[in-house]
Amino acid sequence: MRRFSFHKGHGTRNDFIILDDSYGMHDMHPEFIRAVCDRHSGIGADGVIRVVRASSVRDWDGDGSLWFMDYYNADGSIAEMCGNGLRVFARHLINEQLVDSGEFDVATRAGVRKVEVARHGLITTTMGDATVADEDVTVRLGGRQWPATKVDVGNPHAVVFLEGDDELEALNLQEAPTWEPAEAFPTGVNVEFVRVEAPGRLSMRVFERGVGETQSCGTGVVATAAAYRRRDQADGSIDVTVPGGDLTVDFNGDAARLTGPAVIIGRGEFWL
Amino acid sequence: MRRFSFHKGHGTRNDFIILDDSYGMHDMHPEFIRAVCDRHSGIGADGVIRVVRASSVRDWDGDGSLWFMDYYNADGSIAEMCGNGLRVFARHLINEQLVDSGEFDVATRAGVRKVEVARHGLITTTMGDATVADEDVTVRLGGRQWPATKVDVGNPHAVVFLEGDDELEALNLQEAPTWEPAEAFPTGVNVEFVRVEAPGRLSMRVFERGVGETQSCGTGVVATAAAYRRRDQADGSIDVTVPGGDLTVDFNGDAARLTGPAVIIGRGEFWL
Repeated sequence: MRRFSFHKGHGTRNDFIILDDSYGMHDMHPEFIRAVCDRHSGIGADGVIRVVRASSVRDWDGDGSLWFMDYYNADGSIAEMCGNGLRVFARHLINEQLVDSGEFDVATRAGVRKVEVARHGLITTTMGDATVADEDVTVRLGGRQWPATKVDVGNPHAVVFLEGDDELEALNLQEAPTWEPAEAFPTGVNVEFVRVEAPGRLSMRVFERGVGETQSCGTGVVATAAAYRRRDQADGSIDVTVPGGDLTVDFNGDAARLTGPAVIIGRGEFWL
Repeated sequence: MRRFSFHKGHGTRNDFIILDDSYGMHDMHPEFIRAVCDRHSGIGADGVIRVVRASSVRDWDGDGSLWFMDYYNADGSIAEMCGNGLRVFARHLINEQLVDSGEFDVATRAGVRKVEVARHGLITTTMGDATVADEDVTVRLGGRQWPATKVDVGNPHAVVFLEGDDELEALNLQEAPTWEPAEAFPTGVNVEFVRVEAPGRLSMRVFERGVGETQSCGTGVVATAAAYRRRDQADGSIDVTVPGGDLTVDFNGDAARLTGPAVIIGRGEFWL
């Protein structure tokens, strides 16, 4: 039997297994990741985050003293970045005293991200640029269609603003939305459905490509805020409520920052 | 912050959080159970099993030296018994050396059950009587209907034998089956859909009342075997494959025994 120590945490109900592995000794086999993320025969999570020194990461050519967020999806595939995962990773570094202040940089596959402990124990992270395209696309779901804003946050998003009051809850996201033109998103797209509750306050549901509806998606929240900012010429921070909880986005030019909760819920040993 | 030590285990992918609490000091609030069983903000499981000495259980009037399986569903409700949970509970008692042989009795809300370590590390437990009713009922799903055998295994079951080869996989169990007459099961029923693969070898899918389709259901497997035994006048043990794995049932009169795997996958601390 092999034993692996882990922590588990979540940000707006997007949950992660965290493995401490400073020196990068741990072999991140897809089978291992699938086994630990399996919600019935494993611990269960949306993904695994390995905590490793950047100097131990082969392809990293930046500051080697940073902690590197080595993120994997539950199916064993590598992911560039995950906004909710980044906060959980940061919370773990703080809890375990792996960083010595409330403001620090971390390394990710998408580059360096800045982390800051915000008020009420929330955590703020930089999320890179959110680029809103000029031309709209069309999103279809359940026999209906809407214009959607195309946003790139490192990954592709299509943001639909709904007009009716009850529409958001009524959408059937068991079904996958489709889009047009097909070539707008050759590798698929994450689709956000948004209701404006008040100026600067949005409610959102998200359909993640290859996954289905999820309770929260950090880049989807940033894409939604970026699309809203252009649509309503809005200034200041934007609050976005997703099924899993509340997040806030603010911008400095196109550069987005995401603020939200991150909780470590326990730790243990996984036996394989 | 409060800390709770736990183990996690599963039997044919029916998974449980196990809490050691010999003296019954732990308050089993429904909110606590829901928090730890939540698959995103908790550890995640189908239920919680508290390991407590029977002498510490208020309503127990049998042998106080037995270990009592204090089982709760993920929603915080109390359950009488759970066949897969019973094996996982037994495996934990063995692993932690809380019993001193491979054959022992355990106390449950449904009475005393006998446990025996079987070949290949499988575990056999007694499951009480399976009583097959004389009259059939009708089960409906997706515009079709079948006669179903009514079986009582402490909880109510309706067992449908399918005839076509591919039917079992094709059934849409996202939808809840209905039954007739309604008064046959005033508190709802668990419905099993069964294909006979060979004499004594069955495949089964189950729709658990109040839950939906699950990967395994111990009492459902016993009900299925009991219905098959009467239908085909079968002798000997009956192998039942469910989506979560393989189980075997044998009978002594109406008294059923269930044999199957039970694995402890790890342990840890839950922080609340």
